[in-house]
Amino acid sequence: MTKLRWGMIGGGEGSQIGPAHRLGAQADGNFSFEAAALDVDPEKGRAYAQSLGIAPDRAYGNWQEMLAGEKDRPDRIDLVTVATPNATHFEITKAFLDAGFHVLCEKPMTMTVEEGEEIVRLAESTGRICAVNYCYSAYPMVRQMRAMVAKGEIGAVRCVVANFSHGHHAAGDDDANPRVRWRYDPAQAGVSGQMADCGIHALHLASFILGDEVRSLSADFASTVSARVLEDDAMVNFRTEKGTVGRLWTSTIALGRMHGLDIQVFGETGGLRWASEQPNQAYYQRLGGRVEIMEKAESGLHTDAARLCRVAIAHPEGFPLAVANIYVDLAARIRGEARDGLPSAADGLRSMAAVHAAVDSARHEGAWVDARPPMFR
Amino acid sequence: MTKLRWGMIGGGEGSQIGPAHRLGAQADGNFSFEAAALDVDPEKGRAYAQSLGIAPDRAYGNWQEMLAGEKDRPDRIDLVTVATPNATHFEITKAFLDAGFHVLCEKPMTMTVEEGEEIVRLAESTGRICAVNYCYSAYPMVRQMRAMVAKGEIGAVRCVVANFSHGHHAAGDDDANPRVRWRYDPAQAGVSGQMADCGIHALHLASFILGDEVRSLSADFASTVSARVLEDDAMVNFRTEKGTVGRLWTSTIALGRMHGLDIQVFGETGGLRWASEQPNQAYYQRLGGRVEIMEKAESGLHTDAARLCRVAIAHPEGFPLAVANIYVDLAARIRGEARDGLPSAADGLRSMAAVHAAVDSARHEGAWVDARPPMFR
Amino acid sequence: MTKLRWGMIGGGEGSQIGPAHRLGAQADGNFSFEAAALDVDPEKGRAYAQSLGIAPDRAYGNWQEMLAGEKDRPDRIDLVTVATPNATHFEITKAFLDAGFHVLCEKPMTMTVEEGEEIVRLAESTGRICAVNYCYSAYPMVRQMRAMVAKGEIGAVRCVVANFSHGHHAAGDDDANPRVRWRYDPAQAGVSGQMADCGIHALHLASFILGDEVRSLSADFASTVSARVLEDDAMVNFRTEKGTVGRLWTSTIALGRMHGLDIQVFGETGGLRWASEQPNQAYYQRLGGRVEIMEKAESGLHTDAARLCRVAIAHPEGFPLAVANIYVDLAARIRGEARDGLPSAADGLRSMAAVHAAVDSARHEGAWVDARPPMFR
Amino acid sequence: MTKLRWGMIGGGEGSQIGPAHRLGAQADGNFSFEAAALDVDPEKGRAYAQSLGIAPDRAYGNWQEMLAGEKDRPDRIDLVTVATPNATHFEITKAFLDAGFHVLCEKPMTMTVEEGEEIVRLAESTGRICAVNYCYSAYPMVRQMRAMVAKGEIGAVRCVVANFSHGHHAAGDDDANPRVRWRYDPAQAGVSGQMADCGIHALHLASFILGDEVRSLSADFASTVSARVLEDDAMVNFRTEKGTVGRLWTSTIALGRMHGLDIQVFGETGGLRWASEQPNQAYYQRLGGRVEIMEKAESGLHTDAARLCRVAIAHPEGFPLAVANIYVDLAARIRGEARDGLPSAADGLRSMAAVHAAVDSARHEGAWVDARPPMFR
Repeated sequence: MTKLRWGMIGGGEGSQIGPAHRLGAQADGNFSFEAAALDVDPEKGRAYAQSLGIAPDRAYGNWQEMLAGEKDRPDRIDLVTVATPNATHFEITKAFLDAGFHVLCEKPMTMTVEEGEEIVRLAESTGRICAVNYCYSAYPMVRQMRAMVAKGEIGAVRCVVANFSHGHHAAGDDDANPRVRWRYDPAQAGVSGQMADCGIHALHLASFILGDEVRSLSADFASTVSARVLEDDAMVNFRTEKGTVGRLWTSTIALGRMHGLDIQVFGETGGLRWASEQPNQAYYQRLGGRVEIMEKAESGLHTDAARLCRVAIAHPEGFPLAVANIYVDLAARIRGEARDGLPSAADGLRSMAAVHAAVDSARHEGAWVDARPPMFR
Repeated sequence: MTKLRWGMIGGGEGSQIGPAHRLGAQADGNFSFEAAALDVDPEKGRAYAQSLGIAPDRAYGNWQEMLAGEKDRPDRIDLVTVATPNATHFEITKAFLDAGFHVLCEKPMTMTVEEGEEIVRLAESTGRICAVNYCYSAYPMVRQMRAMVAKGEIGAVRCVVANFSHGHHAAGDDDANPRVRWRYDPAQAGVSGQMADCGIHALHLASFILGDEVRSLSADFASTVSARVLEDDAMVNFRTEKGTVGRLWTSTIALGRMHGLDIQVFGETGGLRWASEQPNQAYYQRLGGRVEIMEKAESGLHTDAARLCRVAIAHPEGFPLAVANIYVDLAARIRGEARDGLPSAADGLRSMAAVHAAVDSARHEGAWVDARPPMFR
Repeated sequence: MTKLRWGMIGGGEGSQIGPAHRLGAQADGNFSFEAAALDVDPEKGRAYAQSLGIAPDRAYGNWQEMLAGEKDRPDRIDLVTVATPNATHFEITKAFLDAGFHVLCEKPMTMTVEEGEEIVRLAESTGRICAVNYCYSAYPMVRQMRAMVAKGEIGAVRCVVANFSHGHHAAGDDDANPRVRWRYDPAQAGVSGQMADCGIHALHLASFILGDEVRSLSADFASTVSARVLEDDAMVNFRTEKGTVGRLWTSTIALGRMHGLDIQVFGETGGLRWASEQPNQAYYQRLGGRVEIMEKAESGLHTDAARLCRVAIAHPEGFPLAVANIYVDLAARIRGEARDGLPSAADGLRSMAAVHAAVDSARHEGAWVDARPPMFR
Repeated sequence: MTKLRWGMIGGGEGSQIGPAHRLGAQADGNFSFEAAALDVDPEKGRAYAQSLGIAPDRAYGNWQEMLAGEKDRPDRIDLVTVATPNATHFEITKAFLDAGFHVLCEKPMTMTVEEGEEIVRLAESTGRICAVNYCYSAYPMVRQMRAMVAKGEIGAVRCVVANFSHGHHAAGDDDANPRVRWRYDPAQAGVSGQMADCGIHALHLASFILGDEVRSLSADFASTVSARVLEDDAMVNFRTEKGTVGRLWTSTIALGRMHGLDIQVFGETGGLRWASEQPNQAYYQRLGGRVEIMEKAESGLHTDAARLCRVAIAHPEGFPLAVANIYVDLAARIRGEARDGLPSAADGLRSMAAVHAAVDSARHEGAWVDARPPMFR
């Protein structure tokens, strides 16, 4: 099978997410890395791209150059990944969709709901794939839980509890580290701190596993470090379209928690639990039964989970391969195969609408507000 | 040292909490079990008491008989434990305090805030001890965390997250089991289901470890089983007097969780975590350091934790000995020694005020309300 | 039911095991503590006994006094617990059995195999109970595993792996602490260090769960701290009467392990796992199935496990209550009821024979030797 | 940096290890996959290679064709991975080394000690890299432990305990599954079953972390399923060159264990623990201190661990990236950089010598035997 051509914007030297994308795109041999604009500093970006094997004429200085250079090439890239600072996602994604490229955008897809709706419409009108990198949804055991819910194996879902709370931004009251501080400054980070950064992952995961969407929510935001304006700890209660009760806690000052993304789903006839720090197991209790430990790659997993396991049971697979799973499905979709579950522009939009709803609720003492984007009401 | 004399009301044959109290009171040789009114059925109560070694003349048919029989004896009991149905706690506790007995009351101490205030005043005016059995606070590692907070070892506390969520009342939508169903029926259980039953343990634990009190709260209640009126799942956001942010989730439909009481405390310079299912360890991360596993009975524990460890490090101690620790401190107090940390009538009152505040908030879409009892405002 | 009368030898102030026995004997109201000789220092022993509520005339200065004082009393004790230094167990146990008392002896029951055989014969001829405090066998989940094996729920047992390895005697090469050092000095500790101290617990546990006995063994002993003569780390391979393969590792220098007693049992159709640090759970995998978490007090436990659970599922019970369970069965046996599973003098003898066999094997480069006491060959 | 050219022999469609090698080689962009002979069935192998993007003229029918085809090409492969059935490793590895290729060989490198010595000499005389895929040694936290031992952070090592025991070959007594059965048949598997298959991983890991080699050993082998001849459960006691005591248990009938590779290292001043099922954490206790949880990618890791972490702390990395780490170091070595820690032909030889020594010892009732290959005595 011929490799697809792939390019990347952002994710330069020293970036955390860059290597995960490069590994993810190339791990299964679906994509060859052909073009890049990796850095805000054009020279650094060009040099780093070439050090990674990109041809000089496709090692671009910025995304505009890359768009111009790629759009008319006969061997132009099939897919571009956008891993730039958040505020630029909208503009770049829009431009590449417009030019007929498939796009994988890092979260958050946009800064505003209006922008999000524009991307959704554009993806629809162009027929291009616009995916958002909610990569936790691509862990095999997350897929297993989603399939179990869909097949009624835990009955109607009563409650979902999702946390994404860690302690990596615990800091003194002056919040002295500039690489942390900007995240809580509205001028640089927008309307939301931790909710927009991590909370939306947990929110997407809840919707994804439930096969259901958040309808309304009530939020309590706190800024626990004096120097901060935006929230570093938030609690969101929500209700889904189907009436499931949701609880979501997200925090950056939770010392003792390392990654801290976990989810519990409680249905009429069964309960499920999974945590991203040990992603190869999930826990399942049937009503009246014992807790069972489900293992990645065990026999009898649902198809959508089994197909994403690369190595045998109990050989752990981790975060970079969850990202790779997103690329597996992107490749399939680009090649014209159907794939359920790839996080879409609509998911990116819903997340942004929920973040804005949470901000709004938190400013009004937790009043319940509609969490849906206008176009989906 | 002479043994103190102890009596018990409620906790008859088949009761869950009865054996824990009898073991707790007698485990350390402080109390001898001398009088009892164990059952609503007088004959069954008398017979069971005698089978446990109570003399026939002190095996009473009900609490009124017991009060009458004990109050003028020269060898009357020093302490009475009240482990009857919730609605009777107030009346019995009041009567025994009035007659000059020390009382250990099961939670909830009362059904209303007004009753709670009356007990607090009565305990003060009579000079008798009125303790409430928030026994989780008596685990050594809970005491260790409390001492660490008090000594500033995690700095100012920013956030506390307490859960008490299990799946033992997950049930079909008809909620057919009468031993579960009554808990969600206002006619039998009062204004609150799970919040009053388990949530208050988590709330007390949070206040206890923080050395701080809940000031205001916002609650989201859900009744996830059709046949139920009262909440079986609740989320409470709160703020303490010192401004700490609180999150409390309590549920009875959380299949996959067994006991489900756990607490996390996040301060400026450290974080702590403990779960009742593995009560002999607690986890501590210093800002910038690794997570350390603290062990019950390890060397260097704070005094109030060390003194409550009975056997060597890594020999687990469990729930019945946490109850026993309450009796250890009751014996000390009755003998005139000072003991910090014994849950008091004021704690029982505060809990009840918080439950009523949560009910009130939940009825008003999560409006923030004052959680304090009027007498402590 | 009338309480039985209980006395104790050894276990004085500062002892680790003394409080566990007193709590264990009294926790369930079966025994009243009536007589004691608690300390090698007669005056300290008498004073401490009286502080625990023993009448002055039964607070003895040594075991000989106690034997003399008790044997002709009409209200003499029903059971005596021997918790003195190891070298004295034989003499005291023998004297009390001879005088018609029931005895619970701390392990090791004797120092030699010959002494062990003498105790076994004496228990038989006098008809008195002589139990040995292998208390780990009294945890409910250990009983559950034993019942599962007996009922064939894991098929024929192929292999058992038992460890009892901790790091509490890790020390500098001079082994300076006298409270540790004597354990590795043949003049004070006898022929074996860690094998006799902890290894025999693991060995008994394996035999107990399997319902089978060790027939032959091969041992590798190591003395990893320069100042030590006796082994502080040992590996024993064994075969049982039924042909099961056994592996037993015991160590005192295993830094990072806290208590370190755990056991795994592998059968034709299922496997089991349990660890004493989390004694309220056990893990079970059926051939072809998932690992299931079994919980103390869950519904459907085998009778012999269920009857030893005091409080509801997921309320942890710990070491002192495992000791208490030994006393529960002792009380039943003294009252004439049948009780399977109480560790007997024969168990004490078999353990001692296995320790001596291990010493012998280790001295002969791991040669396989018969592990059975002569009288059971 | 120009990509290196890579080829693979074995690891065709349906193979477990094939995908891990392809992912591992390509994940970091160091190697391009250029040539392959993937299957014993030449046509299937050619077709599968082409489906993976290999040019038709380099999709070979067998290794002999591949050797002939590659050896004189100007763009010949830099490295070949040998992932064929065990009995062919020697022949293929030898032929490619001889022709001047670098080789990564799956374990076991050879079937006999003599063959192993021949490979070691050949690697030396040709100056080619001959690495063996002991990939567990390439997990970052394993490197961290190795560095800690090397730097004396746990003092002189007293004891190492390594297990590799799982239950995936538990089976009925007829051992009916042919994909399992051959492993215990000397005609197909050679002198050893589980020791050669998994035990050598644990043995290598112990040597690797200790920076020390096994000198002598005593083994106890068991064949617990009737239909088997070779061992499915083995215990090996050993001593290293530096005198450390070793314990190694390996089993395939250990139902309840999933992967089951773990290692504990006990030194004078500290202990370490790691398990492959949760490879991103390791546990460290300093003498007199608490157990600390070390995390992959935490700040302050030793260089050799830190450099192998791809994503941020608490984002798990798994088995395929451990394999990838082997390729990272192979690329560096091929490019002329120094890299300590890559498992070498000498390691492959030592493992084979130890397996043969264990077989020999087991046949002689556990007699202690020299475990070193003759050339290293």
